[in-house]
Amino acid sequence: MLIVKSYDEAIREIPEFYKELPLQTETVTIEAALGRVLAEDACAGEDIPHFCRSTVDGWAVKAADTFGASDAFPAILKIGGEVEMGKKPAVCVEKEKACYVPTGGWVPEGADAVVMIEFCEVLKDELLVYKPVSPGASMVFRGDDAKENQVIVPKGTLLGAKEIGTLSALGFAEVKVLCRPVVGIISTGNEIVDSATPFDPEKAQMRDVNRYLVSSLITQWGGVPRFIAIVKDDEAQIRAAAEKALAECDVVIMSGGSSAGIKDNSMKVIESLPGAEFLTHGLAIKPGKPTILARAGRKAVIGLPGHPVSAYFILQAIVYQIFYSLLGIKAPEKAYFVAKTAEKIPSNNGRDDFVAGKIENGVFRPVPVKSGLITLLSASNGYIRIGKDSEGINKDEEVLVYQY
Amino acid sequence: MLIVKSYDEAIREIPEFYKELPLQTETVTIEAALGRVLAEDACAGEDIPHFCRSTVDGWAVKAADTFGASDAFPAILKIGGEVEMGKKPAVCVEKEKACYVPTGGWVPEGADAVVMIEFCEVLKDELLVYKPVSPGASMVFRGDDAKENQVIVPKGTLLGAKEIGTLSALGFAEVKVLCRPVVGIISTGNEIVDSATPFDPEKAQMRDVNRYLVSSLITQWGGVPRFIAIVKDDEAQIRAAAEKALAECDVVIMSGGSSAGIKDNSMKVIESLPGAEFLTHGLAIKPGKPTILARAGRKAVIGLPGHPVSAYFILQAIVYQIFYSLLGIKAPEKAYFVAKTAEKIPSNNGRDDFVAGKIENGVFRPVPVKSGLITLLSASNGYIRIGKDSEGINKDEEVLVYQY
Repeated sequence: MLIVKSYDEAIREIPEFYKELPLQTETVTIEAALGRVLAEDACAGEDIPHFCRSTVDGWAVKAADTFGASDAFPAILKIGGEVEMGKKPAVCVEKEKACYVPTGGWVPEGADAVVMIEFCEVLKDELLVYKPVSPGASMVFRGDDAKENQVIVPKGTLLGAKEIGTLSALGFAEVKVLCRPVVGIISTGNEIVDSATPFDPEKAQMRDVNRYLVSSLITQWGGVPRFIAIVKDDEAQIRAAAEKALAECDVVIMSGGSSAGIKDNSMKVIESLPGAEFLTHGLAIKPGKPTILARAGRKAVIGLPGHPVSAYFILQAIVYQIFYSLLGIKAPEKAYFVAKTAEKIPSNNGRDDFVAGKIENGVFRPVPVKSGLITLLSASNGYIRIGKDSEGINKDEEVLVYQY
Repeated sequence: MLIVKSYDEAIREIPEFYKELPLQTETVTIEAALGRVLAEDACAGEDIPHFCRSTVDGWAVKAADTFGASDAFPAILKIGGEVEMGKKPAVCVEKEKACYVPTGGWVPEGADAVVMIEFCEVLKDELLVYKPVSPGASMVFRGDDAKENQVIVPKGTLLGAKEIGTLSALGFAEVKVLCRPVVGIISTGNEIVDSATPFDPEKAQMRDVNRYLVSSLITQWGGVPRFIAIVKDDEAQIRAAAEKALAECDVVIMSGGSSAGIKDNSMKVIESLPGAEFLTHGLAIKPGKPTILARAGRKAVIGLPGHPVSAYFILQAIVYQIFYSLLGIKAPEKAYFVAKTAEKIPSNNGRDDFVAGKIENGVFRPVPVKSGLITLLSASNGYIRIGKDSEGINKDEEVLVYQY
């Protein structure tokens, strides 16, 4: 029996269905780890900072020596030397003494606060302090930022710029990360020719757009796209391509031709793959109904609709989720813009509608439904989702527009 | 005289100040063009589609022959053959004839509409059509999606997945794009050591975090980071590194140490570079005041604050804009989440405040100001900007949280 799931069902069930397809790990430099998923906890190897550090240019003191100081009655301390930037001070701050320390410098032992230079005056070998400071003022203590052995970046973190910065602060040169998922791409259809092919005026050809939509998005998400083949509507050809892809890749994305024959042949091939299991044979999504979500043993097998616009929505809304499930993490939530609709957008009950359009000056204008592929892709810069329980969106209603 | 600009002034003046630093162009495959800026208009080389195409499995007809058809009184047409997928049909659809055409197939000459198979019935060599169709129904005409010579992807477009898909639909194998900006990275400060260095317990060292924040973001934006050197607070060393960076790169980002000496030396070096011009010597932004935005002839020279948190905000808010100005395009608007604040966030008049925090379940909670670098970077997942005319944000106020 053919299963058709709703958008919500698919989103809910994808993490569980695809979670047991584990990826290998590899060790890379922290610079190369950008966009990768950390495969083991990254801990602080020592207290950070490993010394007490001044956060200002100022005077290291015992805070108690400044209590009661004021403009009229400054505290008077003996100057006990100067801390050189980057060096451990030889001196110690004793009672009623002060030692100069630059921003980032090591606060000498004995001191428990730093007074900013603005509040002090040097008179020969004495320092006048015009403002009291509390213990801990203008300094950080050893281990304040991270304690030795503390887990700072946990396993399973998607490493962005700030995580790479954090790893560098912890002293990592390399980290262990999950390997990038390798995604095999198969395009099917008698009418499909490679993009670089000039059209034969005697043939009803279509250029292979899906291949490039898939490879671009997989690259953006941090995977490795691998083009396998364009195949005709022929079971044997589709099977050969699928087997090659399964042998070389973690994921197979088969982009179906638009004719009924192709759909039948793709389904037949996927059903017969070793260890084939289906999450769904279709989705209650418009556009994008003819989507197959399956597994073949420990590999993910996805059948995309042949129409590039449908394929693009399914990639953005569904395959995006599958990709991160393979990495064992929650897909980063898609950011959005808030906009008002330029017109009423009707929608059918019982399925989720994705509507592409252009957001400009806070107004979302759908691209007309009759638009061709190129028009739609080049004239839209985002999409909205109308839930299956909604009958549409009114003019001037507020919507969330996802970038795509 | 030292210039200090507001956030708004800087954002407004950056495109003009940095626009004359043009990049070379290169030709790359469309797959490699992802994230690049198109350097010349991409036009349709022919009408697309180059034939009239059916959008359904159906019967190609003259629409006029179906006018008045109904369940009770179907139109009766002669079946005049079948169109094979991918091939130009040999037949022509004449008056009161119909020809089968699959989805994506070539609609034969003479036909001006396609009737879906659902509304038809085959009786031997005759077709009963139970529903009238208008001219143009269920088909697209030659050139409907793009006309020969029409500019489809204009010069200066940042190429995302859908633009790469569009280029493939147009038949491009390669395109001319701007070269990736090469960004030289210099870290200054007596206390700064490379990330991979174990701390010397006798020294007040800090690991070089800025290098990795810069390189990660530049990579994400599509540039090429090139690490030049970590240099001491020494004018000659800083000058040598700056000259090397200028010779090799399009942009130099010099990340300043936190001490006053470093600031003076960096400024002295930048001022003396050939063709030095300053947009500003500082920014009315917290954190991030000690930021230098300058040029040396046709290269951009940026002095970042030494403190990594300040540097990170300036990279996200300011250098991001400069990067895209170099590419001659508007920086992609940063998407956001809408959230309510968990607490009152005070702010000072007269400067823009950037506040890092964590967004969870629609609530934005600032990371406490006293947090160390690592705590802040690992505990926050976004930031808000409080404009210079605001005195702060109340608890439960709605804010836009930018991902970072």
